[in-house]
Amino acid sequence: MATHTGPDAPIDESGTAPSRRALIGWGGAGLALGAAAAGGAAAALGGGADDTRTVADSGAAVPFHGAHQSGIATAVQDRLHFAAFDVTTGDRAELIALLKEWTKAAARMTQGHAVGGGAVSDLAEAPPDDTGEALGLKSSRLTLTIGFGPTLFTDRKGKDRFGVAGRRPEALIDLPAFPGDNLDPARSDGDLCVQACADDPQVAVHAIRNLARIGMGKVAIRWSQLGFGKTSSTTPDAQTPRNMMGFKDGTRNIAGTDTAALDKHVWVSERAGPAWLAGGSYLVARRIRMHIETWDRTSLKEQEDVFGRDKGEGAPQGRQREHDEPNLRAMLPDAHVRLAHPDSNGGARILRRGYSFTDGTDGLGRLDAGLFFLAYQHDVRDGFVPVQRRLARTDALNEYIQHVGSALFAIPPGVRDADDWWGRTLFS
Amino acid sequence: MATHTGPDAPIDESGTAPSRRALIGWGGAGLALGAAAAGGAAAALGGGADDTRTVADSGAAVPFHGAHQSGIATAVQDRLHFAAFDVTTGDRAELIALLKEWTKAAARMTQGHAVGGGAVSDLAEAPPDDTGEALGLKSSRLTLTIGFGPTLFTDRKGKDRFGVAGRRPEALIDLPAFPGDNLDPARSDGDLCVQACADDPQVAVHAIRNLARIGMGKVAIRWSQLGFGKTSSTTPDAQTPRNMMGFKDGTRNIAGTDTAALDKHVWVSERAGPAWLAGGSYLVARRIRMHIETWDRTSLKEQEDVFGRDKGEGAPQGRQREHDEPNLRAMLPDAHVRLAHPDSNGGARILRRGYSFTDGTDGLGRLDAGLFFLAYQHDVRDGFVPVQRRLARTDALNEYIQHVGSALFAIPPGVRDADDWWGRTLFS
Repeated sequence: MATHTGPDAPIDESGTAPSRRALIGWGGAGLALGAAAAGGAAAALGGGADDTRTVADSGAAVPFHGAHQSGIATAVQDRLHFAAFDVTTGDRAELIALLKEWTKAAARMTQGHAVGGGAVSDLAEAPPDDTGEALGLKSSRLTLTIGFGPTLFTDRKGKDRFGVAGRRPEALIDLPAFPGDNLDPARSDGDLCVQACADDPQVAVHAIRNLARIGMGKVAIRWSQLGFGKTSSTTPDAQTPRNMMGFKDGTRNIAGTDTAALDKHVWVSERAGPAWLAGGSYLVARRIRMHIETWDRTSLKEQEDVFGRDKGEGAPQGRQREHDEPNLRAMLPDAHVRLAHPDSNGGARILRRGYSFTDGTDGLGRLDAGLFFLAYQHDVRDGFVPVQRRLARTDALNEYIQHVGSALFAIPPGVRDADDWWGRTLFS
Repeated sequence: MATHTGPDAPIDESGTAPSRRALIGWGGAGLALGAAAAGGAAAALGGGADDTRTVADSGAAVPFHGAHQSGIATAVQDRLHFAAFDVTTGDRAELIALLKEWTKAAARMTQGHAVGGGAVSDLAEAPPDDTGEALGLKSSRLTLTIGFGPTLFTDRKGKDRFGVAGRRPEALIDLPAFPGDNLDPARSDGDLCVQACADDPQVAVHAIRNLARIGMGKVAIRWSQLGFGKTSSTTPDAQTPRNMMGFKDGTRNIAGTDTAALDKHVWVSERAGPAWLAGGSYLVARRIRMHIETWDRTSLKEQEDVFGRDKGEGAPQGRQREHDEPNLRAMLPDAHVRLAHPDSNGGARILRRGYSFTDGTDGLGRLDAGLFFLAYQHDVRDGFVPVQRRLARTDALNEYIQHVGSALFAIPPGVRDADDWWGRTLFS
């Protein structure tokens, strides 16, 4: 049992990462809650959110406060629950109050605490401040990352919804239609998004659910996506996890420790602006269905030619190891690696954080499975859009995949401290 | 990185649990494959499938061969992929050939090997023998458990499909309709089922997918369900994982080491028969949607009264610890624990192995989440049916849940050795 971090793990109240149960103090020990929670908040101020030293230590908490939001440069956690929300209130003050409440809840949950707290008597009589299914679990490196969609700024008719229409960034475009897209509106877009990543899926699901609960009457979940396994790594030299096609894709990802590459390709600079978004980013989410039954009938040689990579090691064709510099001319002109490579796209790079999904079957005896693609970049017009334009036209992979959901969000900068909140720079 | 078992983990080829990658030998080392695979198979013969010593050690393989199928008494793994299949061939010999091929693949995959194998030249030219997305991952305690549904024996009109109609067990009933059921036929029933449990979801998904691939043209997936987190434990004294309602439910589960209880309540005895099913069991699968948004607005006291349990510790009302003997009369008459307790059901006990699920949203802004209930028992007429009759009528929980999928399968005994196969006792 000693190395097990699942729900059966013994509750260790002596470690540095407090369990939710230890802190919420159900059943008698709750009087210590205020002090313990305050200590946790203070500890959280110590590190920046882009601190990646907590790699793959499932018990440790990832700092919530910092210059950038966590969940981007953070070493990729194993599991994902992603939700897009529609804002159902038309009241700016109510939206701001919700964002403040969400920020507080997010700060607590990412540090391994339950949402609420308060006196024992409240717990016994009032509706619970926390849905409770993650009590006793560790923080599991939970990160919560918020984003603002184009429709938060202006509605479909161009009307200013919350007094921030003038602040909509130029780069927060309506994504163009790409050849082959078959987008389901019910799995696309959204006024807000929250990406929850954790090593324990119950912790990620719990976090989204509590934010939805807190937002009742002000926001409603538009769509959500569970990702059962990461397909990317932001940890230098780590093996890239295999996607549902059995390949390592996105091998040359931007490392979470490569601050120069992050500054150049991922974070919005003060110079580029807008000012409220400096230190933030843009997130493209694409639900990519894979026709895996067709793929599984394809020969290994064809599969390797399609990717431009060998399947076993993940090395670029003609090379030996996964991280070897690819020789693009050794690949077919329509090979995926060749077309997606920065050299084929004017140096464009994106930080990938996608997850595999399997959502049952499609009614035709085929698994509804694929890649929930998540990519961060400083400007989609210089990142996802040109790369996807090229891929959508000519990528050999297109025979086996289809984009069925799509969204773009502006990702505000990090929450600096306990007085700061998600969206302050936009709404103040 | 040292304790991390995800796809980023370094590939350890020196441990006792071989990684798929080490054994399939992509890219040059494949000549050692035959010998290594044979070694693995021999090792697998050593232990019974009901051996539970491998508790929570994610690297270790669970023996495939034994008197009972693994995945029942086996210590519950963290993740699930469950699939129900329709048999699309009408040919008995073809079905038997498939079951034999599936058994071989299952024996290999559960021991951490890829499905196929053979010479390197095969890998380079032929369609891959394995879809490949679990290459490099450990066995992750993968178990694969097969079941036979009522419709495998006779079709809806009572016609004998594969010459085994006369062998349909009396206890393999058509489950009665229960009050409150709202069953979706597209998520119910099936000729065959395979339960894949593993600590790494990619390993469970990979296994089902490869069986579907092998079965192409003979079977088709009817429905499938991903379970992201276990809600039961078969390990004595372990904390019961919390379900999506935040409660520990099924605390007094049958332990995988309690052979007396297993013999009495889970395994089909030779005396009860039929002979081909001796050592097997019956599996009830129910997809139980939880109205979690309503639940989340309910007071803690109401929630605890509904379950008859305290939420924090999981103790029966009026007791101190989760595993304390419950005092049923301290609970409300319609409390869930009281109604489900063996004392309220003539001593009936079932072995629970359910998982939490979250399958996106339902189009109305609510999470499609709940419990995928899996329960094993020696006779449903003495297990699930009477208990569920009582619960469906009066359980206070019914306000917050709805059964939306249902299936019953006869679970054949274990595969004895490398010459044995899934279904031999039924089809021979």
